[in-house]
Amino acid sequence: MIELLDKGEKVKAASRKLRLLSTDEKNEAILSISRELEAHKEGILLANSIDVENSKKKGMKESLVDRLALSEDRIAGMIESCKNVVSLSDPVGEIENTWVQKDGLQISRVRVPIGAIGMIYESRPNVTVDASILSLKSGNSVLLKGGSDAINSNKAIVSIIKKALTSAGLPEGSVELVEDTSHQAVEEMLKMNQYLSLIIPRGGAGLIKFVVNNSRIPVIETGTGNCHIFIDYNADVDKAVMIVENAKTQRPGTCNAVETLLVHRAIAAEFIPRAAQILTEKGVELRGCTESIRYWKMLPATEEDYATEFLDLVLAVKIVEDVDEAISHIEKYSTGHSEAILTNDYANSRRFLKAVDSAAVYVNASTRFTDGGEFGFGSEIGISTQKLHARGPFGLKELTSYKYTILGDSQVRK
Amino acid sequence: MIELLDKGEKVKAASRKLRLLSTDEKNEAILSISRELEAHKEGILLANSIDVENSKKKGMKESLVDRLALSEDRIAGMIESCKNVVSLSDPVGEIENTWVQKDGLQISRVRVPIGAIGMIYESRPNVTVDASILSLKSGNSVLLKGGSDAINSNKAIVSIIKKALTSAGLPEGSVELVEDTSHQAVEEMLKMNQYLSLIIPRGGAGLIKFVVNNSRIPVIETGTGNCHIFIDYNADVDKAVMIVENAKTQRPGTCNAVETLLVHRAIAAEFIPRAAQILTEKGVELRGCTESIRYWKMLPATEEDYATEFLDLVLAVKIVEDVDEAISHIEKYSTGHSEAILTNDYANSRRFLKAVDSAAVYVNASTRFTDGGEFGFGSEIGISTQKLHARGPFGLKELTSYKYTILGDSQVRK
Repeated sequence: MIELLDKGEKVKAASRKLRLLSTDEKNEAILSISRELEAHKEGILLANSIDVENSKKKGMKESLVDRLALSEDRIAGMIESCKNVVSLSDPVGEIENTWVQKDGLQISRVRVPIGAIGMIYESRPNVTVDASILSLKSGNSVLLKGGSDAINSNKAIVSIIKKALTSAGLPEGSVELVEDTSHQAVEEMLKMNQYLSLIIPRGGAGLIKFVVNNSRIPVIETGTGNCHIFIDYNADVDKAVMIVENAKTQRPGTCNAVETLLVHRAIAAEFIPRAAQILTEKGVELRGCTESIRYWKMLPATEEDYATEFLDLVLAVKIVEDVDEAISHIEKYSTGHSEAILTNDYANSRRFLKAVDSAAVYVNASTRFTDGGEFGFGSEIGISTQKLHARGPFGLKELTSYKYTILGDSQVRK
Repeated sequence: MIELLDKGEKVKAASRKLRLLSTDEKNEAILSISRELEAHKEGILLANSIDVENSKKKGMKESLVDRLALSEDRIAGMIESCKNVVSLSDPVGEIENTWVQKDGLQISRVRVPIGAIGMIYESRPNVTVDASILSLKSGNSVLLKGGSDAINSNKAIVSIIKKALTSAGLPEGSVELVEDTSHQAVEEMLKMNQYLSLIIPRGGAGLIKFVVNNSRIPVIETGTGNCHIFIDYNADVDKAVMIVENAKTQRPGTCNAVETLLVHRAIAAEFIPRAAQILTEKGVELRGCTESIRYWKMLPATEEDYATEFLDLVLAVKIVEDVDEAISHIEKYSTGHSEAILTNDYANSRRFLKAVDSAAVYVNASTRFTDGGEFGFGSEIGISTQKLHARGPFGLKELTSYKYTILGDSQVRK
């Protein structure tokens, strides 16, 4: 595919220049993008309206049309994102550590950009802006492959970004969009390890699985969150109800929302009716194990329910014997995102923190805090649920690598 | 393949227990391995002699037979490795950072094991011991797939390791060996992302490429080093000759040995004859560009030569215009391992350090220092030449991941 290879080469070539830029140069380019977005918002809205119309004709679900559709407000949000990314500190060039060996060699570990990044995502035009500005700020170029339903919006946005970059003196290939929206183009892109150093898929489980199974390029998996909260025998019931309500209903469509409650048998009779009452009032559908159904009228939970990230007002409930059974259940069903224990037992809190193998493990707090902003990292591209390179919030720093620089005085190895 | 799936499940199950062990428990298990190796060295040597005999019959190259063959001394080396790994500090549990958010949430970033690791390597039985003890020390289990020519040695060693682990109370599946030596077994192993969290290939470029192209599991590429030294116009010629001699001849078969010299035009007439004289005396075959051949009788260098990691007493030479041409040459041919500039020009040293995109970039020192031991990290599994997760020396710390632990007081997200 000539388009892909050509653009792959361009982003690779651009990455060599981007890594030498100063923070000021990168910030100026991002501000230039924000100005061009402002100046050309009508053009973006027009292109987007074509995408929205086509998608409605095709019978796209309303919630997906909503993610695709842009408005003046949403473009203002993109401009706001640009300003936010400008305000974040630049990880590139940061010296993490410097030491001097006995022979006098001075070794430093320095943050550097990764290179050219491939971003594969679904039909959300705001990701086009976010991925571009986060890549640029971290000194990387980016090859964007957005969903076919957003192609007109993405073309409009990328053409504006490219104009801004050229006016700021950045290489043209810093941001490229794959215009071929076929599935085959994704397959080809995943083989381009001569150009791309990292692939980030953002989207549903099917997309991510396809990318993991077919990529020759290192992949960071983000976003699948089958999160658990375990209510221990001596949890404060009032507070536990409040935390569970927050973790389930504050924004049920997010990856850090809770999907399964594990309830210690000793507290079930008190906790379940109290929690179920409030959750039901908030429109949550509960699906419980045989035992928990004794305490509240719920649908029976299936094996499938425990394995599902509902991303919706649905919550599975299971009664467990103790903290160890809770840990085993999490080990079996968790996607490794976020899990919490609500307890006043010190030893159990320590045991849960140590044994649960997820990116974020909480004691007495809502799982909803797993987020780059909430952790104090600024913007993020997603939440990594894998263990290599980056785990948890995946932000600017995780978009960089490091190298060692060694200053010598003619040392040779003995 | 039943063997593979069965062992995959075993190492995954063992990894859940290993991550909870204390440093003392892990050290005791590694010491137990060293004692069992000592007690059963005759058995290992016997098994190894069968491998060596079979390989000789098959006409294996002498240098490869040498890497396969064990001796009392080499077993003593394995025992020494065990003691060294015991002495290294345990990265697991290390708290890298702790901070308190405005709402009182206390967030810590804590080092944790990766899980179950797959190791694919060629016929070097010492790797069987190294990979096992480094994995254990970092709290990981390991599924070993060694070269078919070493199968008897590996079976003997792994059976001893398993005996030692059982006596130390560690789970039996902590170390498993794939006994199926077919190529198909490697392919199957690379699909087992339900069990393995990381694949480390150790071996030639062909093996590494196959693994990268076929793995569904994250891969760390190690070891390919097409390293360069650039002699700038005002380098100290005496010292430059000494450094080049060291980088080429001290151990030419290693990945951090220099493979191409880039010589500034202004110093070529002085430097090339001086360096060539000494290198030739040491048995190095020089292959030069058209211009460099004017200063010393060499074979003409081909495009292929510049792209080759010789791992031998061969050195390519090219005259360049300036530091920028040196950087461009490196950008084109380097494998991203180690590169050096020898100079007394401050600005050029800064430019080279910034622009060269390799794991280790040197000013005025031999490339031979890129090594976990020389950098002060202790043992290493290899040198990573990729940018994700770990770059440069890949040791115990790089065999771990991190997670966030969050201590709350019933905080919910607003």
